[in-house]
Amino acid sequence: MTATPPDVLRCAYAEFVVSDLAASREFYVDVLGLVVTHEDDEAIYLRAFEEYLHHSLVLRKGDTPALAVLAYRVRTPGDLDLAEAYYRELGVRVERRPAGATRGIGEAVRILDPLGFPVEFFHEAEHVERFTQRYDVHGAGALSRLDHFNVCTPDVPAARKYYEGLGFRVSEDIQDDEGTVYAAWMFRKPTVHDVALTGGDGPRLHHIAFAGHERHQILHICDHLGAVRRSDMIERGPGRHGVSNAFYLYLRDPDGHRIEIYTHDYYTGDPDNPVITWDVHDNQRRDWWGNPVVPSWYAEASPVLDLDGAVQPLVVRSDAREADVTIGADGFSYTAEQQGFKLGQQV
Amino acid sequence: MTATPPDVLRCAYAEFVVSDLAASREFYVDVLGLVVTHEDDEAIYLRAFEEYLHHSLVLRKGDTPALAVLAYRVRTPGDLDLAEAYYRELGVRVERRPAGATRGIGEAVRILDPLGFPVEFFHEAEHVERFTQRYDVHGAGALSRLDHFNVCTPDVPAARKYYEGLGFRVSEDIQDDEGTVYAAWMFRKPTVHDVALTGGDGPRLHHIAFAGHERHQILHICDHLGAVRRSDMIERGPGRHGVSNAFYLYLRDPDGHRIEIYTHDYYTGDPDNPVITWDVHDNQRRDWWGNPVVPSWYAEASPVLDLDGAVQPLVVRSDAREADVTIGADGFSYTAEQQGFKLGQQV
Amino acid sequence: MTATPPDVLRCAYAEFVVSDLAASREFYVDVLGLVVTHEDDEAIYLRAFEEYLHHSLVLRKGDTPALAVLAYRVRTPGDLDLAEAYYRELGVRVERRPAGATRGIGEAVRILDPLGFPVEFFHEAEHVERFTQRYDVHGAGALSRLDHFNVCTPDVPAARKYYEGLGFRVSEDIQDDEGTVYAAWMFRKPTVHDVALTGGDGPRLHHIAFAGHERHQILHICDHLGAVRRSDMIERGPGRHGVSNAFYLYLRDPDGHRIEIYTHDYYTGDPDNPVITWDVHDNQRRDWWGNPVVPSWYAEASPVLDLDGAVQPLVVRSDAREADVTIGADGFSYTAEQQGFKLGQQV
Amino acid sequence: MTATPPDVLRCAYAEFVVSDLAASREFYVDVLGLVVTHEDDEAIYLRAFEEYLHHSLVLRKGDTPALAVLAYRVRTPGDLDLAEAYYRELGVRVERRPAGATRGIGEAVRILDPLGFPVEFFHEAEHVERFTQRYDVHGAGALSRLDHFNVCTPDVPAARKYYEGLGFRVSEDIQDDEGTVYAAWMFRKPTVHDVALTGGDGPRLHHIAFAGHERHQILHICDHLGAVRRSDMIERGPGRHGVSNAFYLYLRDPDGHRIEIYTHDYYTGDPDNPVITWDVHDNQRRDWWGNPVVPSWYAEASPVLDLDGAVQPLVVRSDAREADVTIGADGFSYTAEQQGFKLGQQV
Repeated sequence: MTATPPDVLRCAYAEFVVSDLAASREFYVDVLGLVVTHEDDEAIYLRAFEEYLHHSLVLRKGDTPALAVLAYRVRTPGDLDLAEAYYRELGVRVERRPAGATRGIGEAVRILDPLGFPVEFFHEAEHVERFTQRYDVHGAGALSRLDHFNVCTPDVPAARKYYEGLGFRVSEDIQDDEGTVYAAWMFRKPTVHDVALTGGDGPRLHHIAFAGHERHQILHICDHLGAVRRSDMIERGPGRHGVSNAFYLYLRDPDGHRIEIYTHDYYTGDPDNPVITWDVHDNQRRDWWGNPVVPSWYAEASPVLDLDGAVQPLVVRSDAREADVTIGADGFSYTAEQQGFKLGQQV
Repeated sequence: MTATPPDVLRCAYAEFVVSDLAASREFYVDVLGLVVTHEDDEAIYLRAFEEYLHHSLVLRKGDTPALAVLAYRVRTPGDLDLAEAYYRELGVRVERRPAGATRGIGEAVRILDPLGFPVEFFHEAEHVERFTQRYDVHGAGALSRLDHFNVCTPDVPAARKYYEGLGFRVSEDIQDDEGTVYAAWMFRKPTVHDVALTGGDGPRLHHIAFAGHERHQILHICDHLGAVRRSDMIERGPGRHGVSNAFYLYLRDPDGHRIEIYTHDYYTGDPDNPVITWDVHDNQRRDWWGNPVVPSWYAEASPVLDLDGAVQPLVVRSDAREADVTIGADGFSYTAEQQGFKLGQQV
Repeated sequence: MTATPPDVLRCAYAEFVVSDLAASREFYVDVLGLVVTHEDDEAIYLRAFEEYLHHSLVLRKGDTPALAVLAYRVRTPGDLDLAEAYYRELGVRVERRPAGATRGIGEAVRILDPLGFPVEFFHEAEHVERFTQRYDVHGAGALSRLDHFNVCTPDVPAARKYYEGLGFRVSEDIQDDEGTVYAAWMFRKPTVHDVALTGGDGPRLHHIAFAGHERHQILHICDHLGAVRRSDMIERGPGRHGVSNAFYLYLRDPDGHRIEIYTHDYYTGDPDNPVITWDVHDNQRRDWWGNPVVPSWYAEASPVLDLDGAVQPLVVRSDAREADVTIGADGFSYTAEQQGFKLGQQV
Repeated sequence: MTATPPDVLRCAYAEFVVSDLAASREFYVDVLGLVVTHEDDEAIYLRAFEEYLHHSLVLRKGDTPALAVLAYRVRTPGDLDLAEAYYRELGVRVERRPAGATRGIGEAVRILDPLGFPVEFFHEAEHVERFTQRYDVHGAGALSRLDHFNVCTPDVPAARKYYEGLGFRVSEDIQDDEGTVYAAWMFRKPTVHDVALTGGDGPRLHHIAFAGHERHQILHICDHLGAVRRSDMIERGPGRHGVSNAFYLYLRDPDGHRIEIYTHDYYTGDPDNPVITWDVHDNQRRDWWGNPVVPSWYAEASPVLDLDGAVQPLVVRSDAREADVTIGADGFSYTAEQQGFKLGQQV
């Protein structure tokens, strides 16, 4: 590659295709408390309380629930030209989109990235009221901002290399003694990640995550779902991640799209920020408290669309799978290395 | 006294006269999040989320903002007869009220107590839905239940003796080296208090308090008032009390009635529960962090009505006043005894 | 029964036989932060930060890890005579123990109760410093007080009847449509329980519970166990109970004794406190968020000793077992009744 | 200026001269819980739990309590050369310091900045264990990382221009209708600030701040100081700032150096991050809840040393002072603009 990559600021928004806007609204607005910037019969544009761009999540009505796009914001309008040139040299499909092609978003470059994901780069966006101090409308589970994307991709080292080319750095990863890489966390803004690479059949979207300030806000979301008898939407957690140290909760929206609620990770902005490599057999890597990861969390993910709206075909992971090497008859995990291995238990 | 006192369970409800129901509603419902059991043009009946009796607070429209009644619940219907006989022997005015005289409340005995307060005893009350797990309607500052009353009375030892006659016990008090008693906390349910006696001109109502579960809920109420530009309603706190160890916040409603939000006190139900006596000069007795008590908190309180609805005249406190002995040119307070006294500072 | 039962205040202390005092000390003192009142080569006497009696937990060294005694405090010394007469009429073994038979505890009556548990009643106990405001030694997971016992007993209705005879009342229970009772929660102090009756082979001790003030304190205990690589001690949770509404965590000590950490239940002290009956198939009864109960939590419990220190034989439960009717091929549970039943999933 | 400024990452460490190392250690280690990286008879090197560089605070024994240096980390070793050239062109005193001149810090450039402060730029530093997940040693008031410096300087617009030259941007400021600037908040890392400029006689250090994750950690520090009868160390707060939206607490160390504990500010990393200008008369700008700022907070600050260790002389602020225009007979403040002005009250 000779082209200069665009200067990516951070993950900025995602667009989901959902089958029932009203059902999705109940989840994202009534339960999660996201702020509606705009809504009509076709789509709902949402943001969290500390965001001032038009939206960080678009829900668009459609027949096939899927991820329609992952968008990164770039530092300057000129970065769009860099992005276009960069991806043309990479040889993937590239589209220039005029301002307003997505409501509230300025001119953009949209590509199908080498991992198979529809990705957009934009700089300009409409500013809206930042609700940071609108405590009169903050619920007990108030969310602050979009934090990261997590994508399933079969070849994690290849995906890491691609994202390093875009200027992302690794904060943490999961490996085994033989060098198989199961997952990696990569960032531009100085948090643990803007995008996590999860080894699996791909391209699929594992989840997107919103950050809050304190853990009781996450616990309230669970309590709220219990109160409306939708505790089945709680897939995993709440818990403390080993990786990232974040307190987490995984929910499934009415179409099965996975949403993480996340808080308490750490500053990674210094250039020598220490990379943490976790052993795939370490029982506390995914949950610091050793609580099991539910099988669906490993197995299920959202399909992704290409730039024409067709579902992308999957490439099967050929490396070992984390669930297989850590759960069940062939897998093993440990809590404390000196205590030896614990066979056949969930991790 | 030869009569047997009624078996008081706990403080149960208060009725406030307010000048503007709509303004009060904004405060009690929109900000504090109390649940409306019933409302009409004359009154609003409110309860907190874990309460199943009809109300713990009544706001009644009237010209003169005042306390209309403090109500205690008694264990059995038969305790009403005991109450009637007890107060007749005490020689104060006693009225028997039929069920429904106050909406939602059964038969009751209402008296003008020896301290000059309108007090009601009742057993029966209408049951309503307990919202303990209705997390879908709990706001970020959810309140659980009425916790206590705090009354201004000129002679604290006399008031204590009266309440001990009713079976209340003291958990904590504030005194000086010469035996002057400035305040006492008394309970029936096993918390620090159902009623606190604050030395001052009386009868006046110092405040009523609602309890929540966690401190962030109290902090949110402050944030909410800031967001609606009504931070002037925050009179004192938030802070940690020395007495009771509770985390506290004092608000003033639109008529100046003082409401405390309260959490984290301790179990007092064993008969040998140790009584804690605080030195009036101890700078941490009213705020464990040594933050000053604002003068209005010492000086202002709500008038109280007699059983005919007329404002009760005040009896002036003749003993030393806490504000005088601890604040200003003649007062002194200390944080650590060995560090000597700190003259002329607010406590 | 013609005898008057003693006036029980509350659950007061438990004594565990542990196999390794040093290992137990690491768990109860270094991780849970309990205060050591006394320790020697044979035993450790522990209390939580808001307790002023000598201890609420005794760990005694022995070969067979077991429950040695559950102790209730009674209101007066005279209640010991009532207890003695009451249990003699019940026909169970009764022993009078002199003051100091257990360090820090006055004269006591010890019995083998009709459910097969060694139970003590005492009134007098040595007072020690109450650490309520000793924030300099409170850790991030500070515990306030012993909250309750939970015992396994085969016939829950019979056990309930026995405890009702002692003046306990039911706050909540779990039943099915055919009237089988799976568990019941009973109290003297006005919380959800002093003792819970869990249907199962008995007598066995399911757990004892300590209460804290806020949920982050419970989460810290999990984080702490992760940090010392003992997350295997976390058996279940943290989570929100449906029953009691409490936030919970279940740990296993080095001998497998189960400890619950507990906060946020509600006031039950009024005589008409509404009893809540949960359907055994309701997926949110044990965890409001629908997270599964681990099988060990249903299956395992501590043996209990008789008054001579021999392990009590078990009586097998003949009624249906909660795990069987809610988990696996024959069991079913639901989150929302209208959504129908979910077969074969963990609850 | 033609020289290129160094690429500053963030505020990195401060060095305080303290009169009594043991007394300072009690405050910073026993109360605040900072981790000791190294200590000897002359100095203590401290860091917070999520920091992996050698220290973020040095306490050095000396006769005159003062600020010895404020240090910023730069992105590359080459930035040291840029810094040297930049400040030589600026015409201030510049010193090159070899690695180890300060323990744990590599080669550095130290200058006396145009505002009169001793400032260091460094890139290399010794790495030490990051205690992010060492929950076994985290206290209830655990601190995560140094967040910012706050300096008193007479001419805020001039100081802002200087820092903008270094690549800092403004997030928020306080002005009046006539354009007087009372304070400005400026950042390199994407938080509200790395340095705040407070209008006043200068150069003096107003405070340095450490960030934690949740508010209960800040409240615990207050409780802890109460428990050891040092509540006099609490100068202001806890409270919620209007500016920055952060939850705050101001403490004074044994020499009077001011330490802020801080949490909950927001992401500022996008280039169009909206600047918030507060009206100096807005009563919620310094405390969102309208609680008064204590006079000492406006009046007192630490002296700063020049590069030879002599105390810098002060330049008096000639513009209006915030305390004067908002407190007392000549000042005014308001909570809600439409309610008119509130004269003569503290803000």
